[in-house]
Amino acid sequence: MIIVIQCADKVGLVAIVSGLLASEQMNIISMREHVDTEQNQFFLRLEVDGPADAGMLKQKLSALLAGAFIQVNPLPEKKIIVLVTKEYHCLADILVRNHFKTLGASVQCVIGNYNLMEDICSRFDIPFYTVPHEGKTKEDFEKNILDIIAGYEADYLVLAKYMRILSPGFIEKFPSKIINIHHSFLPAFAGAHPYKKAFERGVKLIGATAHFVTNELDEGPIIAQQIIPVNHSYTAKDMVRAGKEIETAVLAKALNLVLDDRVAIFNNKTIVFE
Amino acid sequence: MIIVIQCADKVGLVAIVSGLLASEQMNIISMREHVDTEQNQFFLRLEVDGPADAGMLKQKLSALLAGAFIQVNPLPEKKIIVLVTKEYHCLADILVRNHFKTLGASVQCVIGNYNLMEDICSRFDIPFYTVPHEGKTKEDFEKNILDIIAGYEADYLVLAKYMRILSPGFIEKFPSKIINIHHSFLPAFAGAHPYKKAFERGVKLIGATAHFVTNELDEGPIIAQQIIPVNHSYTAKDMVRAGKEIETAVLAKALNLVLDDRVAIFNNKTIVFE
Amino acid sequence: MIIVIQCADKVGLVAIVSGLLASEQMNIISMREHVDTEQNQFFLRLEVDGPADAGMLKQKLSALLAGAFIQVNPLPEKKIIVLVTKEYHCLADILVRNHFKTLGASVQCVIGNYNLMEDICSRFDIPFYTVPHEGKTKEDFEKNILDIIAGYEADYLVLAKYMRILSPGFIEKFPSKIINIHHSFLPAFAGAHPYKKAFERGVKLIGATAHFVTNELDEGPIIAQQIIPVNHSYTAKDMVRAGKEIETAVLAKALNLVLDDRVAIFNNKTIVFE
Amino acid sequence: MIIVIQCADKVGLVAIVSGLLASEQMNIISMREHVDTEQNQFFLRLEVDGPADAGMLKQKLSALLAGAFIQVNPLPEKKIIVLVTKEYHCLADILVRNHFKTLGASVQCVIGNYNLMEDICSRFDIPFYTVPHEGKTKEDFEKNILDIIAGYEADYLVLAKYMRILSPGFIEKFPSKIINIHHSFLPAFAGAHPYKKAFERGVKLIGATAHFVTNELDEGPIIAQQIIPVNHSYTAKDMVRAGKEIETAVLAKALNLVLDDRVAIFNNKTIVFE
Repeated sequence: MIIVIQCADKVGLVAIVSGLLASEQMNIISMREHVDTEQNQFFLRLEVDGPADAGMLKQKLSALLAGAFIQVNPLPEKKIIVLVTKEYHCLADILVRNHFKTLGASVQCVIGNYNLMEDICSRFDIPFYTVPHEGKTKEDFEKNILDIIAGYEADYLVLAKYMRILSPGFIEKFPSKIINIHHSFLPAFAGAHPYKKAFERGVKLIGATAHFVTNELDEGPIIAQQIIPVNHSYTAKDMVRAGKEIETAVLAKALNLVLDDRVAIFNNKTIVFE
Repeated sequence: MIIVIQCADKVGLVAIVSGLLASEQMNIISMREHVDTEQNQFFLRLEVDGPADAGMLKQKLSALLAGAFIQVNPLPEKKIIVLVTKEYHCLADILVRNHFKTLGASVQCVIGNYNLMEDICSRFDIPFYTVPHEGKTKEDFEKNILDIIAGYEADYLVLAKYMRILSPGFIEKFPSKIINIHHSFLPAFAGAHPYKKAFERGVKLIGATAHFVTNELDEGPIIAQQIIPVNHSYTAKDMVRAGKEIETAVLAKALNLVLDDRVAIFNNKTIVFE
Repeated sequence: MIIVIQCADKVGLVAIVSGLLASEQMNIISMREHVDTEQNQFFLRLEVDGPADAGMLKQKLSALLAGAFIQVNPLPEKKIIVLVTKEYHCLADILVRNHFKTLGASVQCVIGNYNLMEDICSRFDIPFYTVPHEGKTKEDFEKNILDIIAGYEADYLVLAKYMRILSPGFIEKFPSKIINIHHSFLPAFAGAHPYKKAFERGVKLIGATAHFVTNELDEGPIIAQQIIPVNHSYTAKDMVRAGKEIETAVLAKALNLVLDDRVAIFNNKTIVFE
Repeated sequence: MIIVIQCADKVGLVAIVSGLLASEQMNIISMREHVDTEQNQFFLRLEVDGPADAGMLKQKLSALLAGAFIQVNPLPEKKIIVLVTKEYHCLADILVRNHFKTLGASVQCVIGNYNLMEDICSRFDIPFYTVPHEGKTKEDFEKNILDIIAGYEADYLVLAKYMRILSPGFIEKFPSKIINIHHSFLPAFAGAHPYKKAFERGVKLIGATAHFVTNELDEGPIIAQQIIPVNHSYTAKDMVRAGKEIETAVLAKALNLVLDDRVAIFNNKTIVFE
């Protein structure tokens, strides 16, 4: 069972929580705590084992910690919907992990603004919806997508190289629930064409960033980042190719963390209990 | 104040400790816990802040947790003695950090089986003792070293590229108190001439390992490891040169962790609360 | 066009090769050279562009460099056969890249000693052959595999987590043509159960190694290696899971290098022109 | 002997150079070539060994390659001047390497706008000049520095955490001869207070960048970059402390590359023959 708690910090919080768990004969398997002393905010993630019921624990914790954010998760599998454009690398990695039950979530469907990824989805028996953006207002386009999403239950939307900018109205419907992979080491090269910019700048490392989506483009809370070395022999095209490897790896890592309830968000930053 | 606790695991340990801290009005700044479920062992590291006295806290914790290893450290600076042979890179790094008060310890003296490092020590006003190993039995040689050590108080002995093998009798005098930097990614290339072996094997990464010294050569608990990429263009000599950079970095990191009370030892392995 | 040359070193080799290329109006796009001065061996890899014919160039180079190993490769796609046991991660990555034509080779078929990977292969329309090893002599088992291989043309055999040890007789049939992924940072933890050994030793990094297979178990020329950090909180099972990520990445990288003619072998080591 | 050549690309350049070297009985130890096909520019670095004289080789190469940039370097030690402000870490590393003759250059003197680094310099017998910037115009301040520099011969100026912005007039006097270490992964967090910005953005990696100084602040050609992982538990101050380690390492690496004639500059980017 995973317990996540977030509230204003004060003396004795750990004593209150661990006291309750002890009295309920719950054993603490792992415990990770963070105090943001500047903002006076307390974060706790526990893996516990024992006889107690999740709902009851949540109720008792809520009574003890008035006003706190409390989540007690009996480890049900989460559900995700994936949005894509034309590239296969992140999507195929997700589909493979989903197929072999190592993703930590089940993929409900995939939505693309082109139909290029339909074939790979069908090979894994995953519903694919083509929603072309051409010839439509952004509002109509996003309404089409929202209608499809409405047909499923989803804990998270994953933008696996989805190359359209979502509108504020869309994003507000899924607060802290949309995960994007950006193909640069943010905040370097935010926006379009990061590899071209990286090539022109002559950087010696390129990166990828997985982050939650907010209404500030590429400015949402960062979940995971990684880099690989490049050199003068790399063309912009070589950088694109090399970058795909870390885009795939970083998105996989971020999903693993989020789906395992290891990521809290506060003040546009993440607390990641790896 | 840093509190380190190690004992057999049972339900309620965190509740007991955090309950005491709360009742003493101590605030938990950071808390890192580990349970070795296989060995049923509990490890806890706390940074706390508040009005309580270290000695009193230790006494109260000892009363609550019979049989536990308990350390309550009011952050006094630690003291170290460094042993060297001919190479400067790790030693100079330690001397520089010591000089600018960023080491987390104060260097009491340096002992070398050659006098090559005497000059750099004198430049930093650190006593240097030359103890030649030649023409002596190992027993006499080590007795000379022990006599010098006896003149100082030291929390740790740091082998900063000290290239003699210490006898079991010597090592037993300093259990879990001798830190060595080995110039390979252990357990690969244990023993002498690791770079030559790495060159001959044609590895694509070389490494360094900081570990506590036990009577099993290069088999003590590992504190930190790091690698760098190499390729076919590296001669064995190039590997030696490249390796010095990570030897320096890994030893510095390991010292930082140990001197900050972040490293526990159990079953020939370390628990490192980074 | 890719030209690879290997021979004893002497003054003027680059002049001879580049002189011929200039006289044939061939432009040098990239040129990587290595001299093993200890062994007096010369290695050259060129990417060239221009009007000349590959066969003619090879003939003229052979006339100029008697006794040299010369390969002039007009970039046809290579062919590979993959051997697996029970794990999907390396195989699925290869199948996905193969499907999207980014592998640099075409997968002819997959052979497994269990049938677990049959389904994923069929989803990508790749022939899969189950060859059980149980109830057979090693000789018979390997003969079954060899008979299947004989039905295809293959430049390389890729052991994508194939967990049986191949016999010397089998290996001799494919000199420098079998590529294996070993789930440790060789030479550490060669042989069986590397993660279990790594866990017991308490290492702080785990690795993976792609290498050519020779008759010395896990002792063949290393193509690529990579590591990831681990810590005390990793169980042996966690290491296995984390290790799969780098196994996949390292094998992908090694295949990319080998299939692009960037890897030469000499004295049980590789020269890798990245 | 190291030969560096840069010119417009055309067929036969390698043949011309290697033909001359062969006729002069010069053996090629290592050869690294790069063609910028987009810009049609050719770069070559050779390490050669043999009876020929450097001056004569340069003359003959110049005759064969009209208009090319040609450097034939008989490996004399280079000379550098270091500028600092208040921090010791990069400077001390340079002083130690200089002292033990592993820097690849000799430090002529150190200039600081504070006197804090005078003591460490005097411990290594290196002249130190304090040039306060306070109460002076930038012009006067820089004139003071230039006067000191004029008293030495220096191949490069190294800004080892020198925290003043140099004027265009100053920089123009040392084209491609000033090397700076910037405490972020450029182009992220250019300008002042990069760690504060990194902390506020919540990045998961922080970096350092060594680059040549041009009149565009933090926009000069990048020589080397490196990163280290950070997490939510890092305060801005922790990032500063962790960052010092990579600042030191990256500047050391960049100096090693530049002082070994491995770095060419073209179109505000570097070609680095590692």
